[in-house]
Amino acid sequence: MKLGKKVDSVMEEYVTRDAAPEFHEVLLYPLRTGGKRIRPALTLACSLALGGSVEDALPAAAAVELAHNYSLIFDDIIDHSELRRGKPTVWRKYGISTAILVAVHYRESIAQALNDTVNPVEFNSIMARTLKMLVDGERLDVLFEQAGRSDEPYVVENRWRRVTLNDYFDMVYRKTAALIETACVFGALSARASAELVETIRSYGKSLGIAFQVGDDMIDIFGREEVTGKKVGKDVEEHKMGNVVVILALEELPASDRRDLESILSMEKVGEADIKRALTLISRTRARSRAQKLRARYVEEALRALKLVPESEGREMLEGLARFILEREF
Amino acid sequence: MKLGKKVDSVMEEYVTRDAAPEFHEVLLYPLRTGGKRIRPALTLACSLALGGSVEDALPAAAAVELAHNYSLIFDDIIDHSELRRGKPTVWRKYGISTAILVAVHYRESIAQALNDTVNPVEFNSIMARTLKMLVDGERLDVLFEQAGRSDEPYVVENRWRRVTLNDYFDMVYRKTAALIETACVFGALSARASAELVETIRSYGKSLGIAFQVGDDMIDIFGREEVTGKKVGKDVEEHKMGNVVVILALEELPASDRRDLESILSMEKVGEADIKRALTLISRTRARSRAQKLRARYVEEALRALKLVPESEGREMLEGLARFILEREF
Repeated sequence: MKLGKKVDSVMEEYVTRDAAPEFHEVLLYPLRTGGKRIRPALTLACSLALGGSVEDALPAAAAVELAHNYSLIFDDIIDHSELRRGKPTVWRKYGISTAILVAVHYRESIAQALNDTVNPVEFNSIMARTLKMLVDGERLDVLFEQAGRSDEPYVVENRWRRVTLNDYFDMVYRKTAALIETACVFGALSARASAELVETIRSYGKSLGIAFQVGDDMIDIFGREEVTGKKVGKDVEEHKMGNVVVILALEELPASDRRDLESILSMEKVGEADIKRALTLISRTRARSRAQKLRARYVEEALRALKLVPESEGREMLEGLARFILEREF
Repeated sequence: MKLGKKVDSVMEEYVTRDAAPEFHEVLLYPLRTGGKRIRPALTLACSLALGGSVEDALPAAAAVELAHNYSLIFDDIIDHSELRRGKPTVWRKYGISTAILVAVHYRESIAQALNDTVNPVEFNSIMARTLKMLVDGERLDVLFEQAGRSDEPYVVENRWRRVTLNDYFDMVYRKTAALIETACVFGALSARASAELVETIRSYGKSLGIAFQVGDDMIDIFGREEVTGKKVGKDVEEHKMGNVVVILALEELPASDRRDLESILSMEKVGEADIKRALTLISRTRARSRAQKLRARYVEEALRALKLVPESEGREMLEGLARFILEREF
C-alpha cells in the first residue's frame, strides 16, 4: 500500500523516541521486516475521503500500524510462531525477554503517537477499548483451539468444544475487525467528519475487517507456501476450531466424518498425514466456496457503506482497498 | 499503606471495564494477591501535601499502581519467577499466553485511568516516557546478569561483564525510581502545584525510589525467607551483577576473591553451596553496611527535599513513607 508506507518514517520516529541508541536496531526490526501497511492506508484514505488531509491523520495512522505490530509481537510468542513475512519473529531472533520489552516499548510509542492526534483524549479512549477487544479476541481464539498448551492451566480448563458461526464472528470482530474499524474511524475523526459519516466509515471498516479475517482463514487452510509463505493446513496443525473453513466444514460433514475432523484437531501432535486427511474431509464439503462467498458478501457490505461517502479520489482508494481484500490470492 | 488501599476499588473498576465477565476473576488476580500500595500512597500523599485532594489524584494513583502491576506480570515471565507475595505468579497460575493477555489488558486500563486525570495529555506523555524508561532499566538489569538465558540471543550477545556503581544507579533509576518519581509527580500535578513544587516533589520521589531499590537489593541478598518471603542469596542464584551489594563487594574484594565471586555469578546453575560461598565472600567486605548507608543517604536526600514543602498532614505522611523505606527489615 503506497499510501500506507507514508507512516514508516513517522513510526520510526515514535519508536526510537526515548530509547537507548544501542537498542534502536532491535526496536526497528519489526517495522523493517515488511508488512502490507493496510491499516495506515485505511486511516489516511478515510481522512482523504472525508475531506481531511494526510498530514492530520499521520499520527493516528502510525498509532494504528504500531498497534498492529505490537499485537503481532505478542501473538507470535503466544502461538510459538517462528516465522513472519518470511523472517524470524522477534522472540525467535532476539529471545522472549527482549521480545516482551520491545512490545512494551511499542505500546508507549503508540501512546506518544496518540498524543499527537487531533483529539488525544478521544483517540486514547478508542485505542484502549480496541486493544482490550483484541485481547479478548485472542483469548477466545486460543480457547477455540482443540489441543496443545498442556502447560497453560487457564486454556486447558476453559476450552470451547463447540464453536458456532456466531461465536466465530464475535471472536473475529474482536481479534481482527475492531482494529481495522478503528483504523478507519481514526481517519474519519482526523478529518473532523460528521458523526453520521464517522458511523458510515465505521461500518465500512468493520465489514472489511471481517472479510479480511475470512480471507486469512482461507489462506491458513488452503494457502500454498509459494504464494502465501504459510504452510498448507497451518490452522489444522494448530488445532484451531476458530477458522471459518473448519466451522463451515463441520456444519456440513456427516456425523462420522465430523468426529474424524474433530479428532484430528484434538490430537496433541498433528502430523502431515493428519493434515492431508483433514483437507480431504474439508474438500468433501462446500466450505471453501462458502467461505469465499462470505468474504465477498462482507466486501460488498463495505462497498455499500461507501456509497454514502461523496465521490472523490479518497473514496476510490477505499474502494481499491476493498477490492484488494476481496482478491487476495492463496 | 492505608492511604494506598483507597485505589483498590478504582483499579478494579478500570480493570473490569470492557472485559468479558468470565475473565474478571483472572484479571483481578494480580490485584488481589496483595502488594503494599506504596506508589498510590505516594501519589495521594503528594497531592494532599501540596493542597490537592485525594479524589482529584485517584485516577492518577490507580494508573501508577496498575503500571506497577503491569510491569510485575512481565518481570515474572522474564525472570521465570514462580512466586510473588507468597502466591503463584500470573504466568505460573494461568499459563504464559493468559499472563501476556492480562498484562496487555492492564496497559489499556492504565490508559483509561490516565484519561480521567486532571490533564490527560500531560499524564499520558509522562507515563509513556516512564514506561519506556522501565523497559530500558529492565533490559540493562537482564544484560547485567552473568549467566543463564542461553536461548536468548540478544542477551547472550550483549551481556555486560563489568558494572560500575554509576551504571548501577543509571539502571536503577530507570527500572525502579522513575515510576516512583512519576507516582509523586502525578500527585503534585493532580494538586495543580507550582512548577517549583513539582520539581521538589520530583527529587523527593527520585531519591526515595533509589533508596527503595537499594533496600530491595539488600533483601535479595541477605533477606531471610521468614521475613521477606524471598530466598537468601536470591540475586546470586539469578546471576545478577546489577545488585548494589554485589557491586560494592566486588569493589572491595582482593583479586582472587573477586574472581571467585564473579565465577559464581557466571555459573550456569548456582547451587546452595555456591550461594553460601558467595555470601561468605560478601561478608568479608563492608558491602552490607555501605549499602545500608547508601539507602540512608538517599532517604535523607528525600527528606531534605520535603523541607521545601509547607508543613501539613500530607507532608507528615510523606515523611512517614520515607521512614518506612528506610526501615524495611530483612
